[in-house]
Amino acid sequence: MSESYQPIIWRDDTLFLLDQRQLPQVETFVAVTDLPQTATAIREMVVRGAPCIGFTAIFGMALWVRGQASLTLESCRNAASELIAARPTAVNLSFEVNRCLDLMENHLSEKGSSSGLFDRLVAFGKLQIDESQSKNTAMAKLGFAELERTFGDRKWRLMTHCNTGFLACGSLGTALGVISYAHRLGRIDYVLADETRPYLQGSRLTAFELAKEKIPYYLVVEGAASYLLSRGQVDAIFVGADRIAANGDTANKVGTATLAIIAKTYNIPFYVVAPVSSFDTSIPDGSHIEIELRAESELTEHKGQMIAPVGARAINPSFDVTDHRYITGIICEKGLINPSIMGNLLKVVNS
Amino acid sequence: MSESYQPIIWRDDTLFLLDQRQLPQVETFVAVTDLPQTATAIREMVVRGAPCIGFTAIFGMALWVRGQASLTLESCRNAASELIAARPTAVNLSFEVNRCLDLMENHLSEKGSSSGLFDRLVAFGKLQIDESQSKNTAMAKLGFAELERTFGDRKWRLMTHCNTGFLACGSLGTALGVISYAHRLGRIDYVLADETRPYLQGSRLTAFELAKEKIPYYLVVEGAASYLLSRGQVDAIFVGADRIAANGDTANKVGTATLAIIAKTYNIPFYVVAPVSSFDTSIPDGSHIEIELRAESELTEHKGQMIAPVGARAINPSFDVTDHRYITGIICEKGLINPSIMGNLLKVVNS
Repeated sequence: MSESYQPIIWRDDTLFLLDQRQLPQVETFVAVTDLPQTATAIREMVVRGAPCIGFTAIFGMALWVRGQASLTLESCRNAASELIAARPTAVNLSFEVNRCLDLMENHLSEKGSSSGLFDRLVAFGKLQIDESQSKNTAMAKLGFAELERTFGDRKWRLMTHCNTGFLACGSLGTALGVISYAHRLGRIDYVLADETRPYLQGSRLTAFELAKEKIPYYLVVEGAASYLLSRGQVDAIFVGADRIAANGDTANKVGTATLAIIAKTYNIPFYVVAPVSSFDTSIPDGSHIEIELRAESELTEHKGQMIAPVGARAINPSFDVTDHRYITGIICEKGLINPSIMGNLLKVVNS
Repeated sequence: MSESYQPIIWRDDTLFLLDQRQLPQVETFVAVTDLPQTATAIREMVVRGAPCIGFTAIFGMALWVRGQASLTLESCRNAASELIAARPTAVNLSFEVNRCLDLMENHLSEKGSSSGLFDRLVAFGKLQIDESQSKNTAMAKLGFAELERTFGDRKWRLMTHCNTGFLACGSLGTALGVISYAHRLGRIDYVLADETRPYLQGSRLTAFELAKEKIPYYLVVEGAASYLLSRGQVDAIFVGADRIAANGDTANKVGTATLAIIAKTYNIPFYVVAPVSSFDTSIPDGSHIEIELRAESELTEHKGQMIAPVGARAINPSFDVTDHRYITGIICEKGLINPSIMGNLLKVVNS
């Protein structure tokens, strides 16, 4: 089985980041050698996707340590603040930077050397990518087993929404991880990828990932869901998740809930693939999830040019909440959960 | 009540066509004075929408008659063929041109003058626009009465898909006619308009119509349907139809069936507005309606620039079929039909 494509590469003490701003047309890597360059790459979205931002930040802290003649806890904290400020609302960024700070504090209290700390941070970054790859592979195997159980020994026609592959995850991916894994075992007939308006994550990013892995695919508009599913052109649907409530209600990119309802209407199995870290069992259901409204210009403009009348308004929710009753199963690294049984969900997550 | 906006104007023996290719940014009219100019305007989509193409063709035949020293049935037929060839698959074009040919044949058999024939064709064109306006007004009143009956004496939040206003119809419009009519009576809170991928009829054309009539509106992506309807942001949905089968199954722009299923899920009334000429009672249900697949480039490109990877494929159905069970009512100029009762549909259509 081939290796996953790597959008984040650490080589010769340098961080190489695939420049995702230029996808899908241009595939080029940016070399990052210090902290300001790391912050710029995160701020300007050279790198995106919560896991990828986190990995990048760890290597950025390592690059900062290498440039210091002497280290104090205060200077470490200042560097961390500089990096976190690059995208203040990215939870994963501050989470990983704070984990780096803990590691630095331990190292300083143990009177460790600067080069020793650099090595520890690099090893920590590599470990996070490896662990992500392990979790995603576990989920992919569970998804594959579910497909075999449901559809048997033939090739499958799968559908997905938004972007959940190596560009977002830095490793195999979540929903797209299931698809990649099945493709490597020769079991994909084709994939239908929603273009995912308004930001076109499907057309720009998922299509790039599918093409890179030579998986046969077709782009479709979100509105075509009833047409495609009513005609039996899809066996099963796999999507990711941004947040999963205790009862299995799932927040994900806008359009996910719409697709899930159409899937239920035509009895097409609909799976959510997300690591345990996406579960928020402190909220009982999806009504407690606040949905961010994004810029209206994402609908009214394309690359700075108006596509609607001047003065047009838009309502642009970034996410929606899929009621658990429309979800056939939630796949995390610990197992497959049928969300009609909340106790099952909590049992699996807390195992 | 104000007049409808006119995208087709006959004045001083000249046809003025709103150049729909330049919408929504530029609003300019093209002057058409002969048959070749008429054919070019139709071919190059200066004018679009089945009714508008038909009206344009009638005036085009009048312009041709004016330029002839003498008339024969054969020369009339040649002119008709030239016009029909401009968009060979547009049923409405050949339908109206053939009606002109009948009129010309009668006129010639009655030994009428060339200028008399010109006057008759111009009057015929104006009559068609007037009759369309009358039918659309009748439908708008029926839709308005249904809204009053259902929601009473308050302002309504309505949603629509694709383009069904004066740009397509040359008069009040069908689904958008209901909305315009209600707005003129001060009963619209706001309208949600699907952007309608991939061709963006909503963002480019419906938004232009709504802005022109000063109706408050917001553009939304098709994927947001569940988000919007689950939160009670829509009272009712109005769409047009390309073809309606005897049982009420309705073919319309792709995304219509998807929206109708979401509407049913959240108990939001969903209405189809279309003249009797859209009914095809020769087919028992929607499974007999063939769906045209359009160019993949509509998804992979925007204004000639790739938005997906080079070599990306797409499945691009132009229409979908909405099962009658998801339709609350079909409004034609003869009345409101509840499609759960097929006998009712045939009774109204054939009345």
